Amino acid sequence: MSTTTPTSRGLEDIVAGSSAICYIDGKNGVLAYRGIDIHDLADNATFEEVTYLLWHGTLPTRKELADFSLQLVRERKLDAQIISFLRQVPKHALPMDVCRTIVSALSFFDPEEKVNTKEANYNKAQRLFSQTGMIVASYDRIRKGLPLIEPDRSLSYAGNFLLMLNGERPTETAIRALDTSLILTADHEWNASTFAARVTAATLSDMHSAVTSGIGALKGPLHGGANEAVMKLLETINERGADPVEYVKGMIGQKIKIPGFGHRVYTTEDPRATHLRQMSRDLGYSSGKPKWYDDSKAIEEYINTEKKLNANVDFYSASVYHMLGIDVDLFTPLFVMSRMAGWTAHVMEQLADNRLIRPRADYIGPAYPSKWIPIDQRG
Amino acid sequence: MSTTTPTSRGLEDIVAGSSAICYIDGKNGVLAYRGIDIHDLADNATFEEVTYLLWHGTLPTRKELADFSLQLVRERKLDAQIISFLRQVPKHALPMDVCRTIVSALSFFDPEEKVNTKEANYNKAQRLFSQTGMIVASYDRIRKGLPLIEPDRSLSYAGNFLLMLNGERPTETAIRALDTSLILTADHEWNASTFAARVTAATLSDMHSAVTSGIGALKGPLHGGANEAVMKLLETINERGADPVEYVKGMIGQKIKIPGFGHRVYTTEDPRATHLRQMSRDLGYSSGKPKWYDDSKAIEEYINTEKKLNANVDFYSASVYHMLGIDVDLFTPLFVMSRMAGWTAHVMEQLADNRLIRPRADYIGPAYPSKWIPIDQRG
Repeated sequence: MSTTTPTSRGLEDIVAGSSAICYIDGKNGVLAYRGIDIHDLADNATFEEVTYLLWHGTLPTRKELADFSLQLVRERKLDAQIISFLRQVPKHALPMDVCRTIVSALSFFDPEEKVNTKEANYNKAQRLFSQTGMIVASYDRIRKGLPLIEPDRSLSYAGNFLLMLNGERPTETAIRALDTSLILTADHEWNASTFAARVTAATLSDMHSAVTSGIGALKGPLHGGANEAVMKLLETINERGADPVEYVKGMIGQKIKIPGFGHRVYTTEDPRATHLRQMSRDLGYSSGKPKWYDDSKAIEEYINTEKKLNANVDFYSASVYHMLGIDVDLFTPLFVMSRMAGWTAHVMEQLADNRLIRPRADYIGPAYPSKWIPIDQRG
Repeated sequence: MSTTTPTSRGLEDIVAGSSAICYIDGKNGVLAYRGIDIHDLADNATFEEVTYLLWHGTLPTRKELADFSLQLVRERKLDAQIISFLRQVPKHALPMDVCRTIVSALSFFDPEEKVNTKEANYNKAQRLFSQTGMIVASYDRIRKGLPLIEPDRSLSYAGNFLLMLNGERPTETAIRALDTSLILTADHEWNASTFAARVTAATLSDMHSAVTSGIGALKGPLHGGANEAVMKLLETINERGADPVEYVKGMIGQKIKIPGFGHRVYTTEDPRATHLRQMSRDLGYSSGKPKWYDDSKAIEEYINTEKKLNANVDFYSASVYHMLGIDVDLFTPLFVMSRMAGWTAHVMEQLADNRLIRPRADYIGPAYPSKWIPIDQRG
């Protein structure tokens, strides 16, 4: 086999293509969408505005944002058959499995399912964006035996999700906290789930297939699934009344990996962690229940010192989501809702200048040709 | 951004990892599973035997193959809720969308869904292998308003599929033809769908997520979807009573790509095409209806001469599947059934020595830092 590059396990540091969406400077802890620093976006923008930025490449004018938001709100509806499917899913099903399956099923009802044009894909992105959160909230209420809540078109994406999830109008503080966390995790260059979506889209398959691949990849604990693992750790420490540092020391002694630390791309602090740490502290102290933040901070300081590892996006998003009243097995689906903005942006970018993504493998198996042996001569 | 390699569009010729499953020598037109030449396998093996080879690395003894086949046959069952979901899918839904969604839904009923051990994944591979064909056959009968056929555990995988699809016992010739075509497309190194499955699995997500990504990627016309496009071309030529060479000349004049030619990896003939051409000829002449083969051959000779492009696996699989009585929109689902053997083998290999697959992108967007502009100052 002839190849032009040596093997890099996991494609680490391998450039797989060009992209104008997300800029990461891992050495300096910089993340930017379309050139704009994530801290500026987290402090000033809305999730809808950031989604416009990711899809269009520029910040919207007031009128553009109003028109865009209106279009997104118009897609805030689920086919009755989708609700029916959700009601028939076994109540024990993992929300990420439900999310992957039902987002895939949206294709059955998409009016442009057989069209793969730029315009159709933009429309599909809007539908997928608006409907994924509704799927997550609806499944959660169905599995809990609660009545479904109609979407409220006067609310933002974050506000409507919290309403449909909890059945009551959310506070402005909660809306803003969720909105900010959705902004922080909306995109992250060619991370594993975005890459899975691009590999899928690059066969000229369709938008639903691509984001379904993204959801499947995000589920893994080496990717989006890590914030769930962080929360389970915090909950275990809390239930046992353990000292957080002693507890993680014990884990390290047993060679158990502490979730939420280290990142393939950042060698310094993940800028999303900086922001989420602040949110976790604010939410904890403003509610008078700082324990989740305090325990997280203690663990972080210990791991920083002992392991020289920095907290990543998953570490503080756990306590933030928990303090927003979100069940732990919805943390990764929440990440799906956020990353849907980025995945769809990347699929549209991939299709605008497409090339099949098909690497080679270094063959290390039995020598060729190995002989065919008739069945009675084997063993 | 610091990176160690130059960009290769679509990861062409980039080695993304090591693999012991599939050997391809693109210059010499060689394909081998676990070192054994594809022609030896197509001539001598069964699809079950090849699946054992892909999963275990060696050919089974007679007893091993009997035990293995028995286990696969035992998993030849669908949960009643899966059948119910299939009945509720809109009749116009694309079979590939149904395949992707319902294979994903199998996770709800998998007894080991929350277990990601080597053993559990092997069991999941067996279930996915046995149940995917049942999903394809059942959906086809449901959409046609036909009664479902119970699986027959005395038949091989190929025989049972044809029975469940057509409602009548298949001939030995048909079983052998399908079996051979399933063998030919069971694996193909790190093709786009297998790569999507490995990227998904490498986050330590789960087997169902990984193969769902594979199905989504296979759907694309630059990958598995191409055989459907080939058949549509042959059907159009037939319906119009056109001369096949004149028709494709016209397409080339209009710069329309002829499906089924050229391959990223093979610079000479795709060995699967060699075998499928022979099958197409045999099926055509033995049935006294050689037109599909004759038209294909005429197009192939013209494209060979004019474009210096070789037929790939998709080109002759179209006429073969058609002569087996399979609807054109089931061609790619049939490819799913076959490649399920390969995808699951690759997921198991990936997990045996895992590393997150996460490349970088070459950033070509707006300069960092681009300024945040308040909304009323934009435009």
